[in-house]
Amino acid sequence: MARKYVSKRNLEFMLYEVFDAPSLTRYPYYAHHNKKVFDMTLAAALKLGKDLLNPIFEEMDRKAPYLENGKVKVHPTVRAIMQQFGEGGWIAAKFDEMHDGARLPYLIADCCQFIFTAANYSASVFPGLTAKAARLITSFGSPEQIATYVPKMLSGEWQGTMALTEPQAGSSLADIATTAVPTDKGYYLMRGQKIFISAGDHDGVDNVVQMMLAKIEGAPAGVKGISLFIVPNRRPTSDGGLESNDVTVTQVYHKMGYRGAPITELSIGEKNDCRGYLVGQAHNGLAYMFQMMNGSRLSVGMAAIGISTAAYYAAQEYARQRPQGRLTPDPTGPQVPIIEHADIRRLLLYQRAFVEGAFALAMQCCLYADLENALEGEGKEKAALLLDLLIPVVKTYPAETSIRSTSQAIQIFGGYGYCEDFPVEQHFRDTRIHTIHEGTTGIQGMDILGRKVRMKNGKAFSLYLEEVALAIEQARPIESLKPYADRLAASLEELRTVTAALIARGEEKGNRDMLADATLYLDYFSLIAAAWQWLLQAVTAEKALAGNPSKANRNFYQGKVITARYFFHYELPKTLGLAQRLLETDGLTLTMETDYFLD
Amino acid sequence: MARKYVSKRNLEFMLYEVFDAPSLTRYPYYAHHNKKVFDMTLAAALKLGKDLLNPIFEEMDRKAPYLENGKVKVHPTVRAIMQQFGEGGWIAAKFDEMHDGARLPYLIADCCQFIFTAANYSASVFPGLTAKAARLITSFGSPEQIATYVPKMLSGEWQGTMALTEPQAGSSLADIATTAVPTDKGYYLMRGQKIFISAGDHDGVDNVVQMMLAKIEGAPAGVKGISLFIVPNRRPTSDGGLESNDVTVTQVYHKMGYRGAPITELSIGEKNDCRGYLVGQAHNGLAYMFQMMNGSRLSVGMAAIGISTAAYYAAQEYARQRPQGRLTPDPTGPQVPIIEHADIRRLLLYQRAFVEGAFALAMQCCLYADLENALEGEGKEKAALLLDLLIPVVKTYPAETSIRSTSQAIQIFGGYGYCEDFPVEQHFRDTRIHTIHEGTTGIQGMDILGRKVRMKNGKAFSLYLEEVALAIEQARPIESLKPYADRLAASLEELRTVTAALIARGEEKGNRDMLADATLYLDYFSLIAAAWQWLLQAVTAEKALAGNPSKANRNFYQGKVITARYFFHYELPKTLGLAQRLLETDGLTLTMETDYFLD
Repeated sequence: MARKYVSKRNLEFMLYEVFDAPSLTRYPYYAHHNKKVFDMTLAAALKLGKDLLNPIFEEMDRKAPYLENGKVKVHPTVRAIMQQFGEGGWIAAKFDEMHDGARLPYLIADCCQFIFTAANYSASVFPGLTAKAARLITSFGSPEQIATYVPKMLSGEWQGTMALTEPQAGSSLADIATTAVPTDKGYYLMRGQKIFISAGDHDGVDNVVQMMLAKIEGAPAGVKGISLFIVPNRRPTSDGGLESNDVTVTQVYHKMGYRGAPITELSIGEKNDCRGYLVGQAHNGLAYMFQMMNGSRLSVGMAAIGISTAAYYAAQEYARQRPQGRLTPDPTGPQVPIIEHADIRRLLLYQRAFVEGAFALAMQCCLYADLENALEGEGKEKAALLLDLLIPVVKTYPAETSIRSTSQAIQIFGGYGYCEDFPVEQHFRDTRIHTIHEGTTGIQGMDILGRKVRMKNGKAFSLYLEEVALAIEQARPIESLKPYADRLAASLEELRTVTAALIARGEEKGNRDMLADATLYLDYFSLIAAAWQWLLQAVTAEKALAGNPSKANRNFYQGKVITARYFFHYELPKTLGLAQRLLETDGLTLTMETDYFLD
Repeated sequence: MARKYVSKRNLEFMLYEVFDAPSLTRYPYYAHHNKKVFDMTLAAALKLGKDLLNPIFEEMDRKAPYLENGKVKVHPTVRAIMQQFGEGGWIAAKFDEMHDGARLPYLIADCCQFIFTAANYSASVFPGLTAKAARLITSFGSPEQIATYVPKMLSGEWQGTMALTEPQAGSSLADIATTAVPTDKGYYLMRGQKIFISAGDHDGVDNVVQMMLAKIEGAPAGVKGISLFIVPNRRPTSDGGLESNDVTVTQVYHKMGYRGAPITELSIGEKNDCRGYLVGQAHNGLAYMFQMMNGSRLSVGMAAIGISTAAYYAAQEYARQRPQGRLTPDPTGPQVPIIEHADIRRLLLYQRAFVEGAFALAMQCCLYADLENALEGEGKEKAALLLDLLIPVVKTYPAETSIRSTSQAIQIFGGYGYCEDFPVEQHFRDTRIHTIHEGTTGIQGMDILGRKVRMKNGKAFSLYLEEVALAIEQARPIESLKPYADRLAASLEELRTVTAALIARGEEKGNRDMLADATLYLDYFSLIAAAWQWLLQAVTAEKALAGNPSKANRNFYQGKVITARYFFHYELPKTLGLAQRLLETDGLTLTMETDYFLD
């Protein structure tokens, strides 16, 4: 049965009505594209999701990868996925022509990625990771490294990975202990252990290329001594073949969800024969990795939205079809579909307000990324700063909220939702990873409050306030939206106050005190950011409604306006309690000594 | 490795310091007990959890029940569990002496049940359900029915179940379609289908006794035509044997969690040879079932707390042992245990504030249940009304919050928490059932706002306000607690205002409008109820601290006081946004037409 997991109508609304993606083509950087190309790309992505990824959504979960004779076995379709994503140009979508890429805008490419994650998150990870790893090489690698690895990766023949985490170095990358010993043969001898490496090995490709963080012998302590290496599982030989590179998979983790993708534990250089190839300058690895981090974190947020979107449409469809209960006490009449019950509508509106609000925010970030590429000078800097500021938001707001959103999808199904017969329980399990990988929620909280709102003397934050103020000015003249414009204006003013108070506290009492509630600050910031995006969508919808649209479009725009109102009435008020707490100065969690947890 | 999943110290704090369980023995109904008995009972429950239930916590999940040749196979230890719970008197714990029961107070018996759910929720369900089913028979069955079924159930030889749900009748019990045709032989011929029946069949017992709702031919439509039947899977024969009663298991559901217990689909009377025995009066089945509902819903809440408590202790232990990161920027020093990080402490305090606050609320409900048993006249009525009022709270607040609480336990483990190596991912999966069974969250919201706060002209609600006001008066004289007493007083006043506004709206616009945000009202009510319980605990702890306690006790009480403050600073402020929304009168969700969800 064909199952709905994304709304083409909503994608078009975002791309063409709210954010005007085709306007990007007026810049030379994107001038080779036009709306027709965007349409065709979207259509192709939808088809790929429907034909290739979604049909094996459950199967990849039920038949999880496993280790056999030292090799990781994945679902047989993974090879077809990598091939088709390679041949179709999906892995190379955002790359330059010199790498045979389409140089697609983020707005379009990440829309496609969103479709893939909604169709089958685990499956989407194989090509997605490969693109990110290849990007590290094209950005910082030598021409020879690029020639050796990138074509095979972008064609889907080889898998790319990010190999950062170690047993003692998860959130604390300063503690990476994998070592690289220089040789006089142009490579380093690598030795160490990596854990939680996604797609660290599998039989859906001919080789795996690990982008690995390690420390060169004698390097400075901490993050300043980390270097980036290319460590293939099989290294290319001079005759064009491949030979073992002493990378051993010691475990495939058994995970609660996201089970279609193999997360591996790797032993590096057990036989002292693992060769690593330094990328760029020594000791500069973390900086390289961090330049890729924005994209990675945006992807995580997008995946959380994609998964939640799929769960939302499953729940919405079920709610329209499932009869249960009545609106009147008379038990002899027919039951009504549960969508008629106010509480079910509220559960659906909660999900829609989240998935479409968060998706809008992700699209806004994509636009900033595109403008950073397309513009020069001040415009470029502005786009880059706004993107930097919003990255922890667009990563964490979806990651955290998706847990509750997919949970509410289960709730609509009742007991059925708790069973494997419907996809929602898998969505709930799958999405739980997103608050953990690519920087935990706690790390993101410290990033926004400890670094982002203060960077460049608060310039990014000021620019952000201006952006939101602009949306408020657009909404004010529209009678029905004026109350919401006013609410957002009040929230924005409060955000300014709360932020200033926290920064002042940091100056007075130090970082630990300021950052104690950084995660709450991120929640708080996120709700206002999502309200901004809902106001923008409501402006677009109200303008369209004024133009006498078709019945289907009228329904769609009405739905948008009511969902926007839902966000302002049910979600934005959550800032009240958060602001109250953030303005308190008791440092409560710091007074809770470890011994007080004992009994 | 012995693993901590409950705190004996906290159980004693609740039973002996906050609620003074031994004082119950001054009433004739409980005069046969004393503190020594309570201590021994708790110790035995802790031992049973540790020796029998917890060792197979993971195994029951990994090796889920399955259907083989028409018979449900469960973990082999289930038979030992039923036997030991029968022989040890646990199934009969709350029953009268005439049924060979101990007539234990709820405070003690449910504390033990809490221990069992924390040790292994799936395992705890087999005896727990049996006790509830047996209680229905002792309450409403004939002497012959009692003699035939109850001894075998309380001894653990036979399993008891509640067979309510059907494909078209989940939340809407009015639509039950299983039929009962009278015969002249003293039984009814049953025919129909039941779904989601916990422990509907398994090989850990010799027989299963379904307490089944059905409609006698020609019964009135709706809930007024529902009758209660005993339908054993194997019926007793005149010669003391058992013969098939035409109850067929057609499916064992594959669930996300709670996998150790078989949830079954049953086909009743396929061969027209299924005999049901009417319990009590015809057409009165739902009333009987509802008299048991308070206990069932309290059990669900308790189980959600138990599971979350186990997850909390796992996370707390990990946080004290796992080194990661530093409090200073110097990367050369040793890493600190992650409990040193403010955000980790916040995550732990969130969990502790929930599990200990909700547990206190559950104990408070147990106390009301005990007083209802022990008292007569006005005192009895008061206790019964307070219990009735709080049942949707003590069911749903734990059920909903446990999702986030167990999720935060996973968060503390990082990537490890997402893997099967640690118990927390299973706790997260297990607890997700609790917002669904025994009445969904939506049903509970309608129950408290539509029925409970208004019943007897608001008498229960008035009594509740008095109870909370009493706690406030106890806290006010304690200097350090005065600010919290004041906060709770303000919240309580607001609760009165919000409740009155909603009731007035119902009178003006009707139930549908009043109940549209009933679930939010339940959230709102719950936060204030938990704050009440934290204030009570803080009063006890502050008084104890004033008495120069031992170092271990000082740490424990300090932890209590800071966790109480956490609740007031981080959780109670969530009422601000909820109150704002509840006082709005736009009926927003009702304006969202079904077509607006389409696109």
